Amino acid sequence: MNILFVMYDQLRFDYLSCAGHPTLRTPNFDRVAAQGVRFDRAYVQSPVCCASRMSFYTGRYTSSHGASWNNYPLKVGERTLGDHLRDNGMQAWLIGKTHMAVDDAGMDRLGISRDGVIGARVAECGFDVWTRDDGLWGKGPDGAYDRRRSPYNAYLAARGYPGANPWHDHANAGVEEGRIASGFLMRHAGRPANIHEPDSETPWLTDQAIAFVDAQPTDAPWLAHLSYIKPHWPYIVPEPYHALYRAEDVLPAVRDPSERIDPHPVFDAFQSGTVSAAFHRDEVRETVIPAYMGLIAQCDDQLGRLLDHLQRTDRTRDTMILLTSDHGDYLGDHWMGEKDLFHDPSVRVPMIVLDPRPEADGTRGTVCDALVEAIDLTAAFIEVAGGTVPEHVVEGRSLLPFLHGREPGDWRQAAISEYDYSGTGHAETLGLAPRDCRLFMVATERWKFMHAEGGFRPMLFDLRADPQELNDLGASADHAVVIAQMYGHLHRWARRMSQRTTISDAEIAARRGASGGKGILIGAWSEADVAPAHLSDYVGPAPDLPE
Amino acid sequence: MNILFVMYDQLRFDYLSCAGHPTLRTPNFDRVAAQGVRFDRAYVQSPVCCASRMSFYTGRYTSSHGASWNNYPLKVGERTLGDHLRDNGMQAWLIGKTHMAVDDAGMDRLGISRDGVIGARVAECGFDVWTRDDGLWGKGPDGAYDRRRSPYNAYLAARGYPGANPWHDHANAGVEEGRIASGFLMRHAGRPANIHEPDSETPWLTDQAIAFVDAQPTDAPWLAHLSYIKPHWPYIVPEPYHALYRAEDVLPAVRDPSERIDPHPVFDAFQSGTVSAAFHRDEVRETVIPAYMGLIAQCDDQLGRLLDHLQRTDRTRDTMILLTSDHGDYLGDHWMGEKDLFHDPSVRVPMIVLDPRPEADGTRGTVCDALVEAIDLTAAFIEVAGGTVPEHVVEGRSLLPFLHGREPGDWRQAAISEYDYSGTGHAETLGLAPRDCRLFMVATERWKFMHAEGGFRPMLFDLRADPQELNDLGASADHAVVIAQMYGHLHRWARRMSQRTTISDAEIAARRGASGGKGILIGAWSEADVAPAHLSDYVGPAPDLPE
Repeated sequence: MNILFVMYDQLRFDYLSCAGHPTLRTPNFDRVAAQGVRFDRAYVQSPVCCASRMSFYTGRYTSSHGASWNNYPLKVGERTLGDHLRDNGMQAWLIGKTHMAVDDAGMDRLGISRDGVIGARVAECGFDVWTRDDGLWGKGPDGAYDRRRSPYNAYLAARGYPGANPWHDHANAGVEEGRIASGFLMRHAGRPANIHEPDSETPWLTDQAIAFVDAQPTDAPWLAHLSYIKPHWPYIVPEPYHALYRAEDVLPAVRDPSERIDPHPVFDAFQSGTVSAAFHRDEVRETVIPAYMGLIAQCDDQLGRLLDHLQRTDRTRDTMILLTSDHGDYLGDHWMGEKDLFHDPSVRVPMIVLDPRPEADGTRGTVCDALVEAIDLTAAFIEVAGGTVPEHVVEGRSLLPFLHGREPGDWRQAAISEYDYSGTGHAETLGLAPRDCRLFMVATERWKFMHAEGGFRPMLFDLRADPQELNDLGASADHAVVIAQMYGHLHRWARRMSQRTTISDAEIAARRGASGGKGILIGAWSEADVAPAHLSDYVGPAPDLPE
Repeated sequence: MNILFVMYDQLRFDYLSCAGHPTLRTPNFDRVAAQGVRFDRAYVQSPVCCASRMSFYTGRYTSSHGASWNNYPLKVGERTLGDHLRDNGMQAWLIGKTHMAVDDAGMDRLGISRDGVIGARVAECGFDVWTRDDGLWGKGPDGAYDRRRSPYNAYLAARGYPGANPWHDHANAGVEEGRIASGFLMRHAGRPANIHEPDSETPWLTDQAIAFVDAQPTDAPWLAHLSYIKPHWPYIVPEPYHALYRAEDVLPAVRDPSERIDPHPVFDAFQSGTVSAAFHRDEVRETVIPAYMGLIAQCDDQLGRLLDHLQRTDRTRDTMILLTSDHGDYLGDHWMGEKDLFHDPSVRVPMIVLDPRPEADGTRGTVCDALVEAIDLTAAFIEVAGGTVPEHVVEGRSLLPFLHGREPGDWRQAAISEYDYSGTGHAETLGLAPRDCRLFMVATERWKFMHAEGGFRPMLFDLRADPQELNDLGASADHAVVIAQMYGHLHRWARRMSQRTTISDAEIAARRGASGGKGILIGAWSEADVAPAHLSDYVGPAPDLPE
């Protein structure tokens, strides 16, 4: 079986019609959900691109792999999904974005060149590259944000788009009175992007995916990580998508004035940041969110195109389809913009899995509310490839039992997410050393909890009484017992064994007691205490000393 | 300045006359202590060879580097003391034992050959090898414990010692009625080893060290890790050392019958193991301990020989000397043999540092009772080499301020040690999965605490009221507050950031806000929200669309 591992960037869990959005229509997402299982409580390991993705791609928590924020390099030696799949005879290809930063210093230290296949994979997070395009071709007075060559800009140039950076000037900008209207300025979000729609990023990447699928032999299994750049900002979308939704389709912000009164200091800092302040304004929400919804609608149409192609080429039969996102987008909820913290709009993601095999027939169209983590996917993919999950390396648990109607009795009681904001200005606002800029989330069936390093109180939400997470109980004396339970979950997890990755439990068990057979005899007083064979090399006439 | 980093194997903290041993004489250890600082509360990161050493050699906790038990490979990519020193212009050489297991699978995965200097260092824990000899040349029906070639056996063969394994037959065996009397059988501990004393392991390794020192240029700084095999078992020593001490010189075992009544289940399992059971018997202690003391006396004499040589060659002036051990030896205390748990005889080690520079004149001959961890040495060595400790990689703190009379005001309040016994038979006795065979120690000025995974109660000792650690308060309701405090220390530590090793705090701070200058503009509504320079690439006449 093949795996089509589709990731969207910054797609909220609830911006799909199958997840209940009342005004947005996503018939193709819904079509996959109707044939698969929609995991309704899926959390990413960190609500920020790079850290989250490195967890998807390693199957490990962010504090285990260490690449805990954007452009913090993934250290050489971390084993990836690609490594695990190839160990099991499945290829792993990248089509789109990873946001992976290379550990150049580590590669140099170990003498690993990018010119060989090993180094090329180390530098690409374990994937073979069909197309890599991180979709952030920003450029400013200090140079380019991403110093690679952009395949997408090369495509646009070949199509006749002029200029050095058509990614910005066409795909991510509109026109205002004959001048470039950058999508980086949110006031332009309602304009159509100055591009022929089929040339915009989402259709272009879909073209790549179709070309990839068509080029594969039918007898060699593959995973394709089709990793879209959208609906991530710049919030701007070409015609007709720019006009599909209007201000009246925008849901009211999930926020309450009480959230601004004596909030948790870290929440306060984030609420007060530039992005959040922008999203406090209705004008911003009413301009940006229709564009965000249009971007999702375009993603949905392109998903339909891809699904149709798979059907036409008879690949739906032997291809698992997975739809997810690296994190959400607050869009003004909780007085926040962007992602970063642990309210649902940020940390909870769509996760829809379609397994075409008959074993999954019993669960088609169902919704699963088990506490699922991004790293569970990695484990599932290894199983799909026919492997056994190497539990000493991969920290997630396979989701396949849920798909096959065999819900595990010992599933986790708490999901964990982490956030390292050392790279943000909030670190300075709060006066914290980089190592104290770390947040931990614990989500259980009923509670959502956040611990912040740096001496702060925790945050706590009762998801049953307060599903919108508006009432922070972190300072409530009545909840001391719950808070202690949450710390119990956090600390059991914090003490986990995450780095004993060079030896499996099975190897450990097999080695036990073996040293005796190799002449290492501990605690023996006399011959009677040792199996005679273990002494066989140590007996005989005493040899003479040399002169 | 050079560094002579001398490690003994299995040397207890209290088996030195300068540490108060009443019958053992160690004039040369005492001589270093009289010129340096003796750290009296130094703990290893794990009371077992490999794990402890990998912490000394990486400056990282065992759960950070992952090589948590003997022969669990150190994963490729872990940075070592040698890496850090060479970054600062100091060579790092190995003379003796490391007990390091190579991550062969990792080297293969990354295409790193041992034939180049990079691979050779990766395979030797970051050292260049003057002599590597782990001193465990056991052989039995299942083959050799260590499959390398033994330099020490080669030496003995060249000296005319016969047989395939003179390490065993001569250096580690005596003679009983004309037959080999293996030192692996403790009843032979009182016999002299069947070897000319200058050919035994400790003098041989000292010869190597002297040859190393003499071969070094005077203008290039080096660290030599002189890593002795002794006084580790087999407990047997050549003449005259075999007869230096007798049963009457053996101190009474530090143990109490109450320790056998309803002990902590993990303690119970270890107490009941083969080695411990042997040491319950006075006959074993009275035979083995004099040999152990003889081995230490021989180490002391060879230390004197080395110190004299340094003095004669004028290297004491520019050579820091450090004496320590990888862990201790219960020798029957607490009904235990070997090491493994966290009572002082096992986890506390000698640590004597002689800094010849004038800055250290004010502390010569003093004793420091700060809570010191093995990994603090790694940090100190980096500073001696002229470097700044990379705090995002090395978790220890430099000891130099203590030597220079500038005690840090914010020194740690709790020392941590860990033990992974998944590789032992006790895992089976207790019916635990390998990942639950993990123990954690917290030692504060007053308390010693142990947490065991697997659902057990903790252990707790009041070091003030009970310095011999005989009265386990882990089940005492009166100590709930103390136990909670100890868990507080443990969990603060467990949440530490240990894997963000590819980017330093300084680099993080320097990057903050830099993306705006590279055209990544987040949260801007209009031009007024952005520095004009940051928009410079995004303005101009709107380009035409291609046909």
